[in-house]
Amino acid sequence: MPSDQLTQDLLAEISQIPLIDPHSHIDPHRPTARSLDDILGYHYYTELAHSAGMDKAPLAADVAPRERVRAILAHMDRFDNTVQYSWFLEIARTFLSFQGERLSAEVADSLFDAAERLMGQPDWEEQVLKRSGLEKVFLTNEFDDPLTGFDTNRYVPCLRTDALVFQLDQPDVRKRLAKATGVEAGDQVSLKKAITKLFEHFTKHGAKACAISLPPDFQPQPSGSGPSQVFWLLAEHCRTFGLPFDLMIGVNRRVYRAGVYQGQDLFDQRTSLIQYAELFNAFPEVTFCISVLSSGQNQELVSYSWIFPNVVTSGHWWYSNIPAYIELDARARLQAVPKTKQIAYYSDMYKLEFGLPKFNMYRRILAKILADDFVRPGVTTEKGALELARLVLRDNVRRIFKVE
Amino acid sequence: MPSDQLTQDLLAEISQIPLIDPHSHIDPHRPTARSLDDILGYHYYTELAHSAGMDKAPLAADVAPRERVRAILAHMDRFDNTVQYSWFLEIARTFLSFQGERLSAEVADSLFDAAERLMGQPDWEEQVLKRSGLEKVFLTNEFDDPLTGFDTNRYVPCLRTDALVFQLDQPDVRKRLAKATGVEAGDQVSLKKAITKLFEHFTKHGAKACAISLPPDFQPQPSGSGPSQVFWLLAEHCRTFGLPFDLMIGVNRRVYRAGVYQGQDLFDQRTSLIQYAELFNAFPEVTFCISVLSSGQNQELVSYSWIFPNVVTSGHWWYSNIPAYIELDARARLQAVPKTKQIAYYSDMYKLEFGLPKFNMYRRILAKILADDFVRPGVTTEKGALELARLVLRDNVRRIFKVE
Amino acid sequence: MPSDQLTQDLLAEISQIPLIDPHSHIDPHRPTARSLDDILGYHYYTELAHSAGMDKAPLAADVAPRERVRAILAHMDRFDNTVQYSWFLEIARTFLSFQGERLSAEVADSLFDAAERLMGQPDWEEQVLKRSGLEKVFLTNEFDDPLTGFDTNRYVPCLRTDALVFQLDQPDVRKRLAKATGVEAGDQVSLKKAITKLFEHFTKHGAKACAISLPPDFQPQPSGSGPSQVFWLLAEHCRTFGLPFDLMIGVNRRVYRAGVYQGQDLFDQRTSLIQYAELFNAFPEVTFCISVLSSGQNQELVSYSWIFPNVVTSGHWWYSNIPAYIELDARARLQAVPKTKQIAYYSDMYKLEFGLPKFNMYRRILAKILADDFVRPGVTTEKGALELARLVLRDNVRRIFKVE
Repeated sequence: MPSDQLTQDLLAEISQIPLIDPHSHIDPHRPTARSLDDILGYHYYTELAHSAGMDKAPLAADVAPRERVRAILAHMDRFDNTVQYSWFLEIARTFLSFQGERLSAEVADSLFDAAERLMGQPDWEEQVLKRSGLEKVFLTNEFDDPLTGFDTNRYVPCLRTDALVFQLDQPDVRKRLAKATGVEAGDQVSLKKAITKLFEHFTKHGAKACAISLPPDFQPQPSGSGPSQVFWLLAEHCRTFGLPFDLMIGVNRRVYRAGVYQGQDLFDQRTSLIQYAELFNAFPEVTFCISVLSSGQNQELVSYSWIFPNVVTSGHWWYSNIPAYIELDARARLQAVPKTKQIAYYSDMYKLEFGLPKFNMYRRILAKILADDFVRPGVTTEKGALELARLVLRDNVRRIFKVE
Repeated sequence: MPSDQLTQDLLAEISQIPLIDPHSHIDPHRPTARSLDDILGYHYYTELAHSAGMDKAPLAADVAPRERVRAILAHMDRFDNTVQYSWFLEIARTFLSFQGERLSAEVADSLFDAAERLMGQPDWEEQVLKRSGLEKVFLTNEFDDPLTGFDTNRYVPCLRTDALVFQLDQPDVRKRLAKATGVEAGDQVSLKKAITKLFEHFTKHGAKACAISLPPDFQPQPSGSGPSQVFWLLAEHCRTFGLPFDLMIGVNRRVYRAGVYQGQDLFDQRTSLIQYAELFNAFPEVTFCISVLSSGQNQELVSYSWIFPNVVTSGHWWYSNIPAYIELDARARLQAVPKTKQIAYYSDMYKLEFGLPKFNMYRRILAKILADDFVRPGVTTEKGALELARLVLRDNVRRIFKVE
Repeated sequence: MPSDQLTQDLLAEISQIPLIDPHSHIDPHRPTARSLDDILGYHYYTELAHSAGMDKAPLAADVAPRERVRAILAHMDRFDNTVQYSWFLEIARTFLSFQGERLSAEVADSLFDAAERLMGQPDWEEQVLKRSGLEKVFLTNEFDDPLTGFDTNRYVPCLRTDALVFQLDQPDVRKRLAKATGVEAGDQVSLKKAITKLFEHFTKHGAKACAISLPPDFQPQPSGSGPSQVFWLLAEHCRTFGLPFDLMIGVNRRVYRAGVYQGQDLFDQRTSLIQYAELFNAFPEVTFCISVLSSGQNQELVSYSWIFPNVVTSGHWWYSNIPAYIELDARARLQAVPKTKQIAYYSDMYKLEFGLPKFNMYRRILAKILADDFVRPGVTTEKGALELARLVLRDNVRRIFKVE
């Protein structure tokens, strides 16, 4: 709990704002966890446990979920200082009736059982959404996802394009593309045709964004070849189809090659948004929602979104999604970027249960910034601060992605 | 208002220190705004309005000032979270008798009329200077500025050299240089002669500094050619004429090519002061007053000015001139750079009315740092803290630039 | 003193934790200062005095120590804002019975005399260690140090390898290596043999770490030549001999060539831990204790140590060892790196008297972070916070370096 009354009051009000989560990895066919294994299988826990000394044996597919959970919990006293641990603690307390002080191997069995019991309830998904204040959640869909069998109003499709841009030279990706579109993408013309098919398929099924993650040295060019060429085609299609383009900038894949699944990627701080200057100039009609991995690049992002009408700040991604950096990065954005151009936060979650602790982490920081930088110095009133919170947490998402 | 008594007391005292503003873009023949259009024509407002969705039509020269002001104010509710908005609010409240809560299109006409009435007073310049505590203001003069017709004791000339270094290959710049100096600068010898003429002209008219803004990849070399060569000649002349050299490091020009006037430049965080190591070594007699654009480079600046006797920290420039970054950057400087080597702040303003809110923003942060880092931990007394404030805000400027 | 009770209580308890200082430049044959000249001869004071305008004449070997001290103190009123000054103030108050407000030339003689009297006591070393709570102190030993004549249990040897890696092409270094090992290191085979001899010598005498400082552009490769090759051999020996490898990353030597002794080095922010990815992958059995010079690279370090099991955060080095950066960097580490993988702090001192003010600076920041980020938000209890402090300050050092 925040220690001063104003921050407490702001937080209480902010927590009432219904959320639209503009980026997640939710599987709409299986949105919630079904066991504690689904919670602790999140790469944050497997990688922190591994980093702190757990070998990868318990993560093998043939290990019983209960054993895996016990192994990870047994290593938790090595990383119970981390904010990721505190997310889990909040999940355990909010959703799993946990009332203890610390999560460790000793509580593994009882917690596992409680999770099984609670998560097995037929209305679990509804319970989690309601308790978390989540109204809609954006997905991350592979280009050949059929996008059927779920409520695309609640789970909003989003075309993820990493494979198209960076793996189109792989035969199986080409094969998948041909299968999904009915087009053999051999040259520029057929590739364009295939991509048009994808955008038609996605927008027909309610997709509201195109998204991609990019390595630190990527620099798209209008007359590039390979990844740069495909990327440029995607931007053209975003323009044609009226979709914002989420750029998640800065990740190098497979840096720690022996790491756990999804726990191998890292960044290189030596990257700049100037690499995207040509793109931003070439597509004034496309809104680029930018996520970055470091506070250094966040200062660039603040400046680029203050200058370019089509550049928007988006969330606090991955390695920069910890309070020390969120606080600094969010303060700078709130002080210098037009308020209509900020997407405050997204969960990046794989299971709905993580929405609550992640958004709570952000909301606590937001309440503190609004109190310290806006209300107390007289820049705005408490009411004005809450309107600002609502805008960056909800209304901007609706407007920018045209949902509802 | 700061919430604790010590910070309030410090701020009250700091606000009494008469200011010498060591960098501005004031036109000494027209130092104050004459209308609200002059205030909202500041690029911070035109670029934020444009970034937030205003097209550039209202900025055309043939649009009536009242219409332009109305257009910008009509977009202000999209960026009234920014610190730039709060500067304007402070100007409206302090200078324009504004008593409302929010500045929007609704107040455009009344504010425009109030501004016209108040700014038309014959002693407006004196009123603004007095109320702002401004004693002297440094200018930014093109090399062919005649420097006549104004009080150079109040408005201190400063030789701006961007055109000389980066545009000397342009015929009109060469022509202007020839006209200003009577020298056709063809080779190294004649170029040197022309530059000597400029320095003679400027110092004769009371110039106290030479200044330049530099792109992130600039790396001056003693035996360079083109820009590097001219730059090196300027440093030699700073040595000969005893002028400090203001280096404003890191800006790329025309990044957003369709941007508003003065709203097109951005930076690339991948730059280092190591690029200036040869320069700092070669000119121990020249004081280099360094401004940077990012907190990352500010950490370098703190270290370089702690080591190099001729490197001095200078202000909080442009994209780093927002509280979140000023606070971090200023704390580091105050904790690690000799206090005699810090130029706390400059306004960078085009109209005198902006001195007050900009310096106030800095003074509030300074008061907080002095309270938190110096007085409360017992490093110094309240009196010692105020002496430190006076030194970095005033006395250093006088000593380093030899004014008075 | 911290202003709130919780932080005060935490600080009081943290200050009771006996310290193992995992990196210093102590001479075990002369661990304490013998005069005020030994204190003010620390490069922080000579370089700050020089940076603030003192010429280098008083630093010459033939100047009487009392004169040198007077000269440095005479310039101290130009840098008494710095944290380095506050270290000296704390030394003067704690160890030299100083009771005044400010340290200046006026107190030079009395302080010099007091220092001579007090430091001449036969049990001075014991007094300093006790008062500072220092139990063990790691050394920085040249490869040909005999490592005899001192208590290696108290002063723990550490093999410093800068000369081996970066100066092996210098005849005198080769000669010293031959003399120390009995091996003429001509080719890869003989070089390996020589290095093995060094590791045998060092580990036999209780060495607990291998250490090196590295320039910002260094990128070790398995099949490199020159420095890269020697470096890789050292990593292989760390694996064989079970020694952690301290990497102190980012320093450029002799940047300010006319600087005082040890006051010439600076950094270039454009460096990345990605340069060490191959190394970290190749040596999973070696623990790499990483120090960095900038907050930008600290964010990388936080992420790399969260992912790589063999990467550990280590202290707050040199230019980043000031409160503004320690606070940000330490918060991020405590929030995101497994607590077992953090070495909170080391002194880097040359004389034992500096352990107290430097560790106190860190402990005050740590207490504040624990109060604000851990205890007040309910992440852990006061007891849990103190366990965390003990782990990062002491127990991790013992476990990682296998001391005791």
